[in-house]
Amino acid sequence: MSFRNFPMVPRVVFGRGSFNQLGEILEPKRQGNKAPFIFLVDDVFRGKVDLISRIPLKHNDKIIYVSAEEEPKTIYVDDIRDDIKKEFKETPSGIIGIGGGTLLDYAKAVALMLTNPGSSADYQGWDLVKHQGVYHVGIPTISGTGAEVSRTTVLTGPERKLGMNSDYTPFDQVVLDPSLLNGIPKNQWFYTGMDCYIHCIESLTGTYLNAFSQSYGEKSLDLCREVYLEKESIDEDSQDKLMMASWHGGMSIAYSQVGVAHAMSYGLSYLLGTKHGVGNCIVFDQLGEFYPEGVKEFKQMVTKHGIDIPKGLCKDLTDDQFDTMIDVALSLVPLWENALGKDWQKTITRKKLRSMYELM
Amino acid sequence: MSFRNFPMVPRVVFGRGSFNQLGEILEPKRQGNKAPFIFLVDDVFRGKVDLISRIPLKHNDKIIYVSAEEEPKTIYVDDIRDDIKKEFKETPSGIIGIGGGTLLDYAKAVALMLTNPGSSADYQGWDLVKHQGVYHVGIPTISGTGAEVSRTTVLTGPERKLGMNSDYTPFDQVVLDPSLLNGIPKNQWFYTGMDCYIHCIESLTGTYLNAFSQSYGEKSLDLCREVYLEKESIDEDSQDKLMMASWHGGMSIAYSQVGVAHAMSYGLSYLLGTKHGVGNCIVFDQLGEFYPEGVKEFKQMVTKHGIDIPKGLCKDLTDDQFDTMIDVALSLVPLWENALGKDWQKTITRKKLRSMYELM
Repeated sequence: MSFRNFPMVPRVVFGRGSFNQLGEILEPKRQGNKAPFIFLVDDVFRGKVDLISRIPLKHNDKIIYVSAEEEPKTIYVDDIRDDIKKEFKETPSGIIGIGGGTLLDYAKAVALMLTNPGSSADYQGWDLVKHQGVYHVGIPTISGTGAEVSRTTVLTGPERKLGMNSDYTPFDQVVLDPSLLNGIPKNQWFYTGMDCYIHCIESLTGTYLNAFSQSYGEKSLDLCREVYLEKESIDEDSQDKLMMASWHGGMSIAYSQVGVAHAMSYGLSYLLGTKHGVGNCIVFDQLGEFYPEGVKEFKQMVTKHGIDIPKGLCKDLTDDQFDTMIDVALSLVPLWENALGKDWQKTITRKKLRSMYELM
Repeated sequence: MSFRNFPMVPRVVFGRGSFNQLGEILEPKRQGNKAPFIFLVDDVFRGKVDLISRIPLKHNDKIIYVSAEEEPKTIYVDDIRDDIKKEFKETPSGIIGIGGGTLLDYAKAVALMLTNPGSSADYQGWDLVKHQGVYHVGIPTISGTGAEVSRTTVLTGPERKLGMNSDYTPFDQVVLDPSLLNGIPKNQWFYTGMDCYIHCIESLTGTYLNAFSQSYGEKSLDLCREVYLEKESIDEDSQDKLMMASWHGGMSIAYSQVGVAHAMSYGLSYLLGTKHGVGNCIVFDQLGEFYPEGVKEFKQMVTKHGIDIPKGLCKDLTDDQFDTMIDVALSLVPLWENALGKDWQKTITRKKLRSMYELM
């Protein structure tokens, strides 16, 4: 098809306190008493009774705590899948991800790998997944990445950092409860929100853009500006709007793509394990040449919130290490093509990328 | 559930020329050679080879032309359903609506009535539909109503004008091809677009609003303003943006409601058969008291485009006729409550409505 037939999340509930409806939402999807719901929960919530006690466990349902300290990896996806298969005879009724982009991506990937054979590394790419996954639900507790609405789950594998992009990837259900954003550390709130802001700049200035993606991207950008530039505090309204910014920002990628910041940030992340949100900020801070207006506004937001953007990550790297990052970045062809058009290779040489990485 | 678990259209394709992908989209949904796809097409397209020849007919697939001269009626829904059941032994593979809000509403209603017993009039209301309908696809050829994305299909029945609001109502697939908007008569383009504008004003000023609906409503309103106030001609960009305005405007109703204009316009439509778009314009033109900013801007758009808003519809009506309109309008409790809050009956008396209708 010339135009993508975009899969949208078919069910969404929005509201402060809507997390309390989770039991009611899940019950009709239960495939009998022996097919558990598996809750993948960010392990920062371990012992946080307020959230954990509200997870509606029944029968042999299980919570698995997963660390989001590192970017999601194909080996951990495979491990979680194998553990679930070993412990339960029946295929789970569903996988529920509770956390930020990392947990949401794990939930999507595990749901797919319960019904697709082999390793998740085999499916990094576009439309390689062949079978529908088990029912999967996304519940963001931090907003910005758009993982709750996207058709990818970005994984670091043995050979590359690349998503499992497929029509089977999006969640079957999303619960948007802005009250779950309470208590996020400020740096994290900023870095993850900037992932959304940077998405939008990359999408709106890209060559792939159409009116569908533009309308979502513009609304998301308006909301980011309201949250990060206009408001004086992180109040409830700010949480509500950040959650919607992330949602619309994710949708804006439907017929578009991200660009230079994401391509280079994937390189950093692959080599150094830099987390996605902060990695994007580190890269975007140096991209005034490509996104002059966006970078100017980004710097205003950094200043306003007194955020520390790490510097000097690349100062001691070897030639081989630079080459690795450059290989990863250059492999993301659609991102470069969206950012700079078909002739992107005229501008983006290995030397150019090396000089840019050296600034970070 | 306190918060609605909103059903979204699970598949959408957007693009100029995407209508040509229809065959490819439908084929995987075909339930064998004897289960036809039924195309409900606005009869203004009869003989319009450019569109009709591109409808991908196979096997016993059938085009049924339906007039949109009148608002959709429960008796016609039942008739179309009965004719299909008589002609085909097997349940259709799908129903595809091609046209404006009227045709889209017919497609949704017929799809539901192929699997739910009785008359469509039995299901006018909220959540009365019990069984999933057959696969149904919406392809707008005029934009504004939001019917392509909403969870209702508004029908005039023997006793009321009211939608079949249900989780089964939304389309399974929508094709947004802005090139299908070519050739719309200017008045129609205006009236239908104003349905969207009025939706948004009613939603954004309503008491039901939350951040989800607000973000969609604001974007839709921005796009309406661009199309109807800022642009000097109806170019391709304008068609693209109107299609997205309608989409986001429909989504903005998810957690909101329409208001005074829709409630009163339903009365006009029930009694006089006034079409929905122009009916909303006739009513909204007189609602400066309730929506001062919106009505002011609406009048600017009317003037800019030299549109004729019909007047004097009610000048020769009898008391009984006024009473009928007032009964219909007053029955739409959620609309009044959204517009004016729980105490709406303090302001909205029969006398008040009569005096307002007399201006129209």
